Amino acid sequence: MSMQEQYHITEEPFYQPTGNEVTLYEAAYQQRLPVMLKGPTGCGKTRFVEYMAWKLQKPLISVACNEDMTASDLVGRFLLEKDGTRWQDGPLTVSSRIGAICYLDEVVEARQDTTVVIHPLTDHRRVLPLDKKGELVHAHPDFQLVISYNPGYQSLMKDLKQSTKQRFTALDFEYPDENTETSIVSKESGLDVEQSKKLVQIGHRARNLKGHGLDEGISTRLLVYAANLIQAGIEPIEASKMAMVRPVTDDPDIRATLNNAVEMIFG
Amino acid sequence: MSMQEQYHITEEPFYQPTGNEVTLYEAAYQQRLPVMLKGPTGCGKTRFVEYMAWKLQKPLISVACNEDMTASDLVGRFLLEKDGTRWQDGPLTVSSRIGAICYLDEVVEARQDTTVVIHPLTDHRRVLPLDKKGELVHAHPDFQLVISYNPGYQSLMKDLKQSTKQRFTALDFEYPDENTETSIVSKESGLDVEQSKKLVQIGHRARNLKGHGLDEGISTRLLVYAANLIQAGIEPIEASKMAMVRPVTDDPDIRATLNNAVEMIFG
Amino acid sequence: MSMQEQYHITEEPFYQPTGNEVTLYEAAYQQRLPVMLKGPTGCGKTRFVEYMAWKLQKPLISVACNEDMTASDLVGRFLLEKDGTRWQDGPLTVSSRIGAICYLDEVVEARQDTTVVIHPLTDHRRVLPLDKKGELVHAHPDFQLVISYNPGYQSLMKDLKQSTKQRFTALDFEYPDENTETSIVSKESGLDVEQSKKLVQIGHRARNLKGHGLDEGISTRLLVYAANLIQAGIEPIEASKMAMVRPVTDDPDIRATLNNAVEMIFG
Amino acid sequence: MSMQEQYHITEEPFYQPTGNEVTLYEAAYQQRLPVMLKGPTGCGKTRFVEYMAWKLQKPLISVACNEDMTASDLVGRFLLEKDGTRWQDGPLTVSSRIGAICYLDEVVEARQDTTVVIHPLTDHRRVLPLDKKGELVHAHPDFQLVISYNPGYQSLMKDLKQSTKQRFTALDFEYPDENTETSIVSKESGLDVEQSKKLVQIGHRARNLKGHGLDEGISTRLLVYAANLIQAGIEPIEASKMAMVRPVTDDPDIRATLNNAVEMIFG
Amino acid sequence: MSMQEQYHITEEPFYQPTGNEVTLYEAAYQQRLPVMLKGPTGCGKTRFVEYMAWKLQKPLISVACNEDMTASDLVGRFLLEKDGTRWQDGPLTVSSRIGAICYLDEVVEARQDTTVVIHPLTDHRRVLPLDKKGELVHAHPDFQLVISYNPGYQSLMKDLKQSTKQRFTALDFEYPDENTETSIVSKESGLDVEQSKKLVQIGHRARNLKGHGLDEGISTRLLVYAANLIQAGIEPIEASKMAMVRPVTDDPDIRATLNNAVEMIFG
Amino acid sequence: MSMQEQYHITEEPFYQPTGNEVTLYEAAYQQRLPVMLKGPTGCGKTRFVEYMAWKLQKPLISVACNEDMTASDLVGRFLLEKDGTRWQDGPLTVSSRIGAICYLDEVVEARQDTTVVIHPLTDHRRVLPLDKKGELVHAHPDFQLVISYNPGYQSLMKDLKQSTKQRFTALDFEYPDENTETSIVSKESGLDVEQSKKLVQIGHRARNLKGHGLDEGISTRLLVYAANLIQAGIEPIEASKMAMVRPVTDDPDIRATLNNAVEMIFG
Repeated sequence: MSMQEQYHITEEPFYQPTGNEVTLYEAAYQQRLPVMLKGPTGCGKTRFVEYMAWKLQKPLISVACNEDMTASDLVGRFLLEKDGTRWQDGPLTVSSRIGAICYLDEVVEARQDTTVVIHPLTDHRRVLPLDKKGELVHAHPDFQLVISYNPGYQSLMKDLKQSTKQRFTALDFEYPDENTETSIVSKESGLDVEQSKKLVQIGHRARNLKGHGLDEGISTRLLVYAANLIQAGIEPIEASKMAMVRPVTDDPDIRATLNNAVEMIFG
Repeated sequence: MSMQEQYHITEEPFYQPTGNEVTLYEAAYQQRLPVMLKGPTGCGKTRFVEYMAWKLQKPLISVACNEDMTASDLVGRFLLEKDGTRWQDGPLTVSSRIGAICYLDEVVEARQDTTVVIHPLTDHRRVLPLDKKGELVHAHPDFQLVISYNPGYQSLMKDLKQSTKQRFTALDFEYPDENTETSIVSKESGLDVEQSKKLVQIGHRARNLKGHGLDEGISTRLLVYAANLIQAGIEPIEASKMAMVRPVTDDPDIRATLNNAVEMIFG
Repeated sequence: MSMQEQYHITEEPFYQPTGNEVTLYEAAYQQRLPVMLKGPTGCGKTRFVEYMAWKLQKPLISVACNEDMTASDLVGRFLLEKDGTRWQDGPLTVSSRIGAICYLDEVVEARQDTTVVIHPLTDHRRVLPLDKKGELVHAHPDFQLVISYNPGYQSLMKDLKQSTKQRFTALDFEYPDENTETSIVSKESGLDVEQSKKLVQIGHRARNLKGHGLDEGISTRLLVYAANLIQAGIEPIEASKMAMVRPVTDDPDIRATLNNAVEMIFG
Repeated sequence: MSMQEQYHITEEPFYQPTGNEVTLYEAAYQQRLPVMLKGPTGCGKTRFVEYMAWKLQKPLISVACNEDMTASDLVGRFLLEKDGTRWQDGPLTVSSRIGAICYLDEVVEARQDTTVVIHPLTDHRRVLPLDKKGELVHAHPDFQLVISYNPGYQSLMKDLKQSTKQRFTALDFEYPDENTETSIVSKESGLDVEQSKKLVQIGHRARNLKGHGLDEGISTRLLVYAANLIQAGIEPIEASKMAMVRPVTDDPDIRATLNNAVEMIFG
Repeated sequence: MSMQEQYHITEEPFYQPTGNEVTLYEAAYQQRLPVMLKGPTGCGKTRFVEYMAWKLQKPLISVACNEDMTASDLVGRFLLEKDGTRWQDGPLTVSSRIGAICYLDEVVEARQDTTVVIHPLTDHRRVLPLDKKGELVHAHPDFQLVISYNPGYQSLMKDLKQSTKQRFTALDFEYPDENTETSIVSKESGLDVEQSKKLVQIGHRARNLKGHGLDEGISTRLLVYAANLIQAGIEPIEASKMAMVRPVTDDPDIRATLNNAVEMIFG
Repeated sequence: MSMQEQYHITEEPFYQPTGNEVTLYEAAYQQRLPVMLKGPTGCGKTRFVEYMAWKLQKPLISVACNEDMTASDLVGRFLLEKDGTRWQDGPLTVSSRIGAICYLDEVVEARQDTTVVIHPLTDHRRVLPLDKKGELVHAHPDFQLVISYNPGYQSLMKDLKQSTKQRFTALDFEYPDENTETSIVSKESGLDVEQSKKLVQIGHRARNLKGHGLDEGISTRLLVYAANLIQAGIEPIEASKMAMVRPVTDDPDIRATLNNAVEMIFG
């Protein structure tokens, strides 16, 4: 399997559009503009970029960013070999060379050197300088950079610099509406529509608690987990508590509120 | 002994269920959902995951997380060999390849890069990117991720990110009730039921002090230690002080309260 | 391709002068004085230095500075080879040797060792000591050092030391005036002048919000992005929101203000 | 000399029991329970564990913990050899393999990864996972873990985690009573009992100053130092000042108080 | 070219004495006393030490200190070679061996290990212990240590330790008086005396603003830059703004004050 | 030259005793007790230990401690050689093996791991565990540990731990009295007694300013520097200012006070 093939998405990922995001993304890709996906945890940003990569038939290289990640983790480093050192391209360099969509997930978590390193790739230059190797990589014409960003995490301490933000076009993501989410839960888990709808209703109630005791709403992913547990034979009430209440909070009051919602809807 | 055999649990670990946690875990495993075990120190979370691994006949790889642990400690690194570098899989990668249950104990202690690295293994992708090696490991169908989490430690400074929490189903653990705990202490130490019950009574009194001078209750493990010392010929009062009072506090008032309880119950 | 050729700019970069900056730069270069380019994000500093390098027919080596960059990243380091170590010149050393213009972008981001290392290159000595190699590099007669600096970022915590500042002559940059910017947007994107002018008007309104909710004005680059999206068939209002509103702020009030401007001007 | 022999204590260390600590320790060792020795600086904790190792005829491996110690310092690391890397067991691993008593002195000084690494050795598993080597060491049946802990240092910033404390039985240590300490000083230094008693009296007065200007009392070790100096021909008053006053404080008032005590008792 | 020749200054550097500093330095050198040069940025400290090295016909090795510099950067380190490691002397060690004047510029920037490492070279011992190599270098009889120090930077956070200060004799440096400075500017740039005098007058006015909005006065170096620009054909007013106003401040009020002075004097 | 010879002091260092410190040190050495030398900068602590090493005919290994020094810098480390790694003893290990006096200068500057590593060498065990090498070095019978400590630096942030302090006997050092110091200055510099006395008088006045504007008194070393400069032909007033005023303070008031004293005494 060639390197390009390894990163091709061969099966259509399940993605339910909620607006004109597919059209807007296609236009941005046509112009090779960098794109920033904004939205809360688990609302489908990762799935969307997989879907677009599949639709555009481009390889996709994803990197989960974190605060201990260095520029070398993205760009590459020298490895010691039998006959001296060998340069190993990092995921950003590989993407630039093979013309992949490079997706930096939660880029705000990364240290500044990681974010600054993408600058020359995101303006008219479209180059990646490998300073340690003394090479200037000109990005493949198909290369595009996509990052995700959760505005809920934004703080004085940790925010993208304006000089980084101003290198991206942006798309907003929210949790899907009730019908769309019901169809997602049902399709992903195999659970019938009626019970899936009930799970979605619990999820929507929980999302109203965001900012009133919950840091984030319950993600679509957790609704699917609950549906999975029901499919495996667990009582809906037990399944909902295991997948949608206990993971998100330890506060007794919030738990009681959520448990009430679960029991009322499935009772 | 093959690598898989090394991690198989051959003898049934002693585990006394306290609710429907075995059934719920089995359902989660059937759907390969990630599981988070929540509860205080020494209440049996580690024992439970060993029991489940034995029951499901899957290898178990445990990792005690700590704040100096890096992503490489989980994922792997290059080692220098006679003929250049050799890649050494870390415990998470080994688990993904051989289809083990990977148990990350006290995951909140780890640095963020350790927790972010598990993200692609805990959603629909079930992959582990080895960025430094340029390899994308697709998890073995039997692989499952389990983490433990002590809500008592939760603080503003050190908490799991919502984007991590929302990747897990969760089970709550508490100290066992008096009868169950008595039978555990007696069975583990060989001490008779009557004396074991007294140790459990001391433990329960101490747990009432949690938040009133004690950070945590006394764990079942310490009760078993006291029983072990009695079995080795130490007076119950001395044994209780050595195993259940001195380790947990240096505060003279709390010590006096606990010593009184010990002397009253064994006096 | 020789090393020098790799860094030559072969096509004239599009640059629209806004004052006498070209003449001043040419005089500074004639005397080989170091130059500091001051101004906000995305106002054309990088493009200007590319234009001057092309005009003067000198190679240009650009380095995006960041807070994790060390002096070794600029100066060079020893690499392990089959037959022992080999010295690898960093970009500053390469520039000194081949007589390039070395452009350190956002130099204030770098750690102090990075900024101190340029001192002997910026006074009458024009030398670069490679302490680790025990070599003293005398700069090529064509070598010049240029740095960029965003006064908006200046703070007590992170500012250039006076002993660094006093080694540079300086040029101020601002966003171009309305007509100039319109012609830039139109020329870069191919969008007609009328619509380009509207984008520029939105940009100018947004820049008035700087300090009243926006940390920085909207850069010319984002105006071009919006024009690109319109050229790719997206409605001007949608394109403006995607390229000029969402990337720069998540504040609902500021977003409403900007959206109003977009809708009024393109409505 | 085999590795085990290197760590055997061949001569009986001088240790004067002050209570039932020997019996309690023997019971803990019989059950292989981990033991925590609590008490102030220089009151004999290290000597006690040496004495017990000699009495039980087990090898003893001591490690002075410090805040820069890493888990690798305890567990081991790969070293580069002529023919590639070689694994070097750390002191904890050696102890686990050969069945030694492993004594971690002032464990609270160590970083968390050092303390977490001992967890699986201190519960029913009695294993030490060498993650970097991919090996699971099952502890030798004779292995036991002992740590020391000075409650006087305990603070919010630096304390053992409850999940660590609850893995140990504990013994309290205090400075010995006057007669016992006199006999220790006399026996260790060869000084006659009368003068030794005087040194002990000075020591006891100094310990009353603890919390009133002295952070810690004067240790038995310093009393022996003073006796050593007297044996070497120094005047008792001079010897006491050199060994018991100047090392512990620079505060002129406290020094005057201590000097007065010295002069009164030896005057 | 031998190593010693590389560091010899072959042409007389232009230096205009402002007092008895040359005599005092020669006496200090005759006794091989360490010398500290104190004074603000760009007043000629570096030039002075070059002049003295030329006058005394001794090699000069200069090191620009910074806060990321380690003791190894000064003393040396082991490098990996084909046949194992090879020791590479650092600039301080080279100076000690060949009998150079070693000039540590802005030594207060360096980390403490860098400043402590010079201690044994600055007292009667005149030795440099290479702990990592196990060698004790006795300084060449011609060796002398010179450091520079800017009292304006002195703060509670970053100051030389008294135990370092008390190892040096010291010379004070100030900006030269008007006539001296005029002759320096004219001689260095080739600009006529009349215009040079005007630049010096601007500089002197700016220095009066020190502490009233300017952190430092304008250095002689910047006056020379302005003269260079005038020589390259730039209008005096433009040249002064580019070289003497914009680099030193972004404060609009201070800029206006300085611009007024420029326009008045050259108007 | 053997390793031991390299560290032998062959010429008697000039040292003028100020009390019974020589006798006390000899007694401590006879009993091999660790010694702590307490006193301000430049009062002769280093000279004293050199004198004692010469008197006792023992090799002396000195280490200037600093906050970046690690335990490995003292104990040793593995170096890469042609045929794999080779262990290189650090100065503490060398001292332990060859029976040297090991002098750790300003030990409080070192990180904790450096100070903890000396613990087992300073109690009855007299051993140094090389954990990384798996070797336990038993100290040579002649080995002794000496540390210096400046109480003036003592602070809450940086102080020796009590568990370290209580491992040492201690000697206090002060600046010598007027006659002794005069004879030292005269003997070291060759300056006549009359002028030396004047320098000493200036020094004594300056020491009265300690705590009233001066952090430390003027060390004997600086008095000798001034005498050296006078011997090299510099006027006494100029010499005193260069060696005794400018290095120690930049405060204009303190400088005026000191300059007055200089001019009055030499005027």
